[in-house]
Amino acid sequence: MASKKLTSLLTKMTLEEKIGQLIQLATPFFEGSKNEGQITGPLASMNISDEDVRNTGSVLGASGGAAESIKIQKAHLKKNRLGIPLLFMADVIHGYKTIFPIPLAIGCSWDLDKAQKSAEIAATEAAVAGVHVTFSPMVDLVRDPRWGRVMESTGEDPFLNGEFARAFVRGFQGLDLKNNPKSVAACVKHFAAYGAAEGGRDYNTVNMSERQLRESYLPAYKAALDEGCEMVMTAFNTVDGIPASGNTQLMRNILREEWGFEGVLISDWGAVKEMIPHGVAEDEAEAAYKAIQAGVDIEMMTSCYVDHLKKLIDSGKVDEKLIDESVLRILTLKEKLGLFENPYRGADEELEKELVMSNEHRQAAKELAISSSVLLKNDGVLPIKTNKKIALIGPFAKSSDILGPWSFLGSKEKAVQLYDGLQEKLDSSLLVTAKGCSIETGSDEQFAEAVKVAKEADVIVLALGEASEMSGEAGSRADILLPKVQLELVAKLKKLGKPIVAVLFNGRPLDLHGIWDEADAILEAWYPGTEGGNAVADILFGDANPSAKLTMSFPYSVGQVPVYYNHFNTGRPQGAPDAQERYVSQYLDIPNEPLLPFGYGLSYTRFEYSEVKLSATTLSTTKPVTVSVTVENTGECAGEEIVQLYVRDVAGEVVRPMKELKGFKKIALEPGEKVTVEFEIHEEQLRYHHPDLTFKSDPGKFIAFVGPNSRETVEMAFELVKE
Amino acid sequence: MASKKLTSLLTKMTLEEKIGQLIQLATPFFEGSKNEGQITGPLASMNISDEDVRNTGSVLGASGGAAESIKIQKAHLKKNRLGIPLLFMADVIHGYKTIFPIPLAIGCSWDLDKAQKSAEIAATEAAVAGVHVTFSPMVDLVRDPRWGRVMESTGEDPFLNGEFARAFVRGFQGLDLKNNPKSVAACVKHFAAYGAAEGGRDYNTVNMSERQLRESYLPAYKAALDEGCEMVMTAFNTVDGIPASGNTQLMRNILREEWGFEGVLISDWGAVKEMIPHGVAEDEAEAAYKAIQAGVDIEMMTSCYVDHLKKLIDSGKVDEKLIDESVLRILTLKEKLGLFENPYRGADEELEKELVMSNEHRQAAKELAISSSVLLKNDGVLPIKTNKKIALIGPFAKSSDILGPWSFLGSKEKAVQLYDGLQEKLDSSLLVTAKGCSIETGSDEQFAEAVKVAKEADVIVLALGEASEMSGEAGSRADILLPKVQLELVAKLKKLGKPIVAVLFNGRPLDLHGIWDEADAILEAWYPGTEGGNAVADILFGDANPSAKLTMSFPYSVGQVPVYYNHFNTGRPQGAPDAQERYVSQYLDIPNEPLLPFGYGLSYTRFEYSEVKLSATTLSTTKPVTVSVTVENTGECAGEEIVQLYVRDVAGEVVRPMKELKGFKKIALEPGEKVTVEFEIHEEQLRYHHPDLTFKSDPGKFIAFVGPNSRETVEMAFELVKE
Repeated sequence: MASKKLTSLLTKMTLEEKIGQLIQLATPFFEGSKNEGQITGPLASMNISDEDVRNTGSVLGASGGAAESIKIQKAHLKKNRLGIPLLFMADVIHGYKTIFPIPLAIGCSWDLDKAQKSAEIAATEAAVAGVHVTFSPMVDLVRDPRWGRVMESTGEDPFLNGEFARAFVRGFQGLDLKNNPKSVAACVKHFAAYGAAEGGRDYNTVNMSERQLRESYLPAYKAALDEGCEMVMTAFNTVDGIPASGNTQLMRNILREEWGFEGVLISDWGAVKEMIPHGVAEDEAEAAYKAIQAGVDIEMMTSCYVDHLKKLIDSGKVDEKLIDESVLRILTLKEKLGLFENPYRGADEELEKELVMSNEHRQAAKELAISSSVLLKNDGVLPIKTNKKIALIGPFAKSSDILGPWSFLGSKEKAVQLYDGLQEKLDSSLLVTAKGCSIETGSDEQFAEAVKVAKEADVIVLALGEASEMSGEAGSRADILLPKVQLELVAKLKKLGKPIVAVLFNGRPLDLHGIWDEADAILEAWYPGTEGGNAVADILFGDANPSAKLTMSFPYSVGQVPVYYNHFNTGRPQGAPDAQERYVSQYLDIPNEPLLPFGYGLSYTRFEYSEVKLSATTLSTTKPVTVSVTVENTGECAGEEIVQLYVRDVAGEVVRPMKELKGFKKIALEPGEKVTVEFEIHEEQLRYHHPDLTFKSDPGKFIAFVGPNSRETVEMAFELVKE
Repeated sequence: MASKKLTSLLTKMTLEEKIGQLIQLATPFFEGSKNEGQITGPLASMNISDEDVRNTGSVLGASGGAAESIKIQKAHLKKNRLGIPLLFMADVIHGYKTIFPIPLAIGCSWDLDKAQKSAEIAATEAAVAGVHVTFSPMVDLVRDPRWGRVMESTGEDPFLNGEFARAFVRGFQGLDLKNNPKSVAACVKHFAAYGAAEGGRDYNTVNMSERQLRESYLPAYKAALDEGCEMVMTAFNTVDGIPASGNTQLMRNILREEWGFEGVLISDWGAVKEMIPHGVAEDEAEAAYKAIQAGVDIEMMTSCYVDHLKKLIDSGKVDEKLIDESVLRILTLKEKLGLFENPYRGADEELEKELVMSNEHRQAAKELAISSSVLLKNDGVLPIKTNKKIALIGPFAKSSDILGPWSFLGSKEKAVQLYDGLQEKLDSSLLVTAKGCSIETGSDEQFAEAVKVAKEADVIVLALGEASEMSGEAGSRADILLPKVQLELVAKLKKLGKPIVAVLFNGRPLDLHGIWDEADAILEAWYPGTEGGNAVADILFGDANPSAKLTMSFPYSVGQVPVYYNHFNTGRPQGAPDAQERYVSQYLDIPNEPLLPFGYGLSYTRFEYSEVKLSATTLSTTKPVTVSVTVENTGECAGEEIVQLYVRDVAGEVVRPMKELKGFKKIALEPGEKVTVEFEIHEEQLRYHHPDLTFKSDPGKFIAFVGPNSRETVEMAFELVKE
């Protein structure tokens, strides 16, 4: 509910001023901006008047730093008749200037505290630079590694995505937006189901049943809102045939009415006008009409609202009440952020210098990079002894392209390259390097040089991967192998017969053919961020022990996608006791299982699971059961283990996943140490959407699974009984 | 409505006898069968008593010929207390013994008359051998070439699939089932949406919105029923989370109530019991309960009904009325087929000898094979002059595996191999041959032999493809290239620099990398059936002119699937006037477009399209518009052209496909001949499912497209106006 102050303010506003609050303009439109007046390309086609700018409610891409944001705000307050401050919004996704690993990597840490911390640091750096809102977290469920934006998600599990959504919101927003000027408001995106783009092609059609939408895709958005996330962004895609930005079922019925969301809903970049090419609006007026009816408060980067809302209201097609509601929501957010008291909020040049890229922030980035790197394979070659001579080869040996997509403000110059990270650890005589090839091109000379360098060494460390523009928005690939030239490099080096350690820098699960059999060890470093080189070096030399586990399956090949652990059984599962040889659900040429499953990741030590127990074999609404398991570090070094709990409903009224993650615990164990990990299973966790979409549980048989990943589990049956 | 005779018969039946009608048993259970008593494997686990057999209503796989079916029926009538005849059912999919091309190939003929004729011939051969019902047509919409059963469908278009569904039903059933004993009852399958198995993996989960189900997937089943199809088979997959065989929304609400279907509903093989592994039934009793509630009349190949229905009725869980309804539907079908008058119906050993594989039937098969083979590429090398020396090379040079999946009764011995077909046309000195390799394996010796043989010739004809078991049921492939060894063979032969004509025998759209650039001409022969070798030879030498056009897109690569012509535009389409370079819906590494689009196919002559006109630019419910186009054969030989009409709704209440096939005409033109082709567009054709699923049209802008395929079209705008 809006405050009296705001409702009173609203009564003073003209219709034009109200509509102005619903507009978001990029920085070039504003006096005081470094790129003031650079209104070209899509900006030029917006046809924005000076009056529109004066009335505008928010700024897109406000990331020029404290001085600039103060200047813009100051100039704006002078011009805006009622002195309503601007809201500054920006894409602060996995760090502001101190860049953390990409979200998919953060997901693999299973470390909610570190994830929260990363958001807190990003918020601090952004807030002191004058940002009020970040377009984050992105919590889209992803099952198709062809899609470039999988790098921005935490993976394929609804529950885990929800936990990370909450952690990021806590980190960005803190406990008190108004009184903590080092926080920013969060904006969960992309509502809804953007991750299910058909064929993994960005912006493509999404088609699914409402059941699947509610069961798998909506929970993480809901989790973010339950944590108090202030804003929601619409998705580019259609949901049940209607683009999200014009989808009343999604935005009015589910988001507003059912979930009670009272915050600000913003369209994604240009998404309102894109209803025209989508084919649900003949022109911009119809697009504006559909968006405001659906409840989009702020239109980003197109001018359907500014050009048409007034006419739509004057002609009676749109009720001004809708505008008032939107304006109040926006003003309320400004009030929550304390902008009416202090329109500059956290913007502070001194603090900016002190905090942005501080050592403490870099240290946190390094720790999260270590916790996010997944050891995929290790035939004993890792960790590398520091007396070995290393040949560091590959396009990522001396590359700063390790921040990943969505790190606009991160400076590559300050990123620690792998070579630099290794150099810190080694006598310089023990490190030789060659590029071997570029990301997608190479020459015989480069290959020859690489072979020559490799011959000098005891161990080859191959730094391979995708250029960051090969994933991220509009970064879809139909082929998800490592680029061909890099595989040729691998094949050439393999012939030398020396141990090969591959370190991969990439934004999606890859088809690992061409490196899986060839390398003796593989570390998936993702895009590790600013401190990448140091983090990877720590792992390679055993100064840190990898503990991350995949949150998105690595497919056997692209012909297998979508492949995900929480699938259904089908009526003819492979490997059933009475299964026929041919007539089961399988491919003739590859396995059904992904190469590497959800939850998978290795350590330098060994963890043994024993004494898996259930406290009872029946459970009721008032009586949960406790699953316990003893985990012992039976290896030689300290390490962290992520213990996972899954559940299956044996027979539902609709088909249920073979396994669903219901809990996880990250534990740290010294060599020889053991601990008993406990999980409670409550009736609430056994609920699902029935044929009529009611959300409830059924009495009957269930199976609990405990293990180090989704594949290697111990199972125990229990029953849900009526009271 | 059942006749009085049948309702009276029903009153005489015991509950066991009624349940017996709902059971279908394979031939080994029956006295008089050639394999009587061979009750092993899945049959043994059914635990069927003599009494069950006595009461049984129908026979599965009844394809042993007239003598056997007469014997079985005779023996059965002696034992069955009320003398109720058995129904004999079998999989007669694309021919009984005279095998026609696979249905996907028949689809490519766009020739409804020939398709109907093929079903009529299949029905004749089957009926005189004692079959009463065929489990055909399969009309599942298909968009994923990984799925093996795409070979059994007519393709990716709802309208075209519906037209073929009707043609096949007309062909199988004729005009009067009772008085035409050479007809069989048809059973449309697989209800519903089996073609959308996730990842193209057979039997896998299907997930889609009810909108997509109704808009794209249901129409072809409905078309078959509108044509009078007597039976429906359930699909293996789930629909909205519930296996089809237990899906009351699908079977009771849509099929029975909404569509008014009064015929017999049969489960697919084992699909009732498969509700247990699906996870919606804890045991067989629950599976039987769900199936009968959903309205499954006949359970195929499992014994949930026979073992549990009586108990379910006795305990009051199932109303006996449901059983009575099912029994009456089955008895009504027997009555419609005339079995109460003549339980042997068409079974006739004399006619069987005379008609099965008659010359007339073989001739029809040859004609349809010619009309179904798609010329994909021709750089002037086809047709081959008969004075050229030909090297016929490849695993399909002398292969009889050209009948394709689902041709159990077709005899490979009688299939005309490609070598034999060519030999008929050529002086024997002009034809040399080598195998080159097997389907998936080869040796250097085979390659060397192939090269040697190729060197002798003027033209290399490469006969390549998939073994038939690489498609069909449970024939999913994750990699859809030609098998690697065959591509190696191509590469070796390519080095000789001689013209290469590739003839492909396969059951799915392939990724043509490795043959597309290498061959000078490519003929997609699919599995052409009994007369395959003759049909292909006619085409290769120009005795026949290819006219078929693809009804399923050939993807650029497997990383592009699903890819289909009738997709939506997205909000950021490639190639839009204001599209940015990166931020559009595309892959970074491959085109969005398939290699070969829906509707594509070449001819030996050229057709020029001109004078594309609309009779009016507005259309109303009472005033259709006429699209006309002049097509001229400007080439050197007679040929057939398939002229295609597509429509787009510019802005709907939900997104609408970029193009939808609304009409097609197949025309034959002599060289120099031209003809004006006309299509009417009626308001009914512009209807679609609105947000609330009502089916209606909207006034507004539309575009009509006319052309030789879905890509190369001329467009014209028109408007739908209110009366």
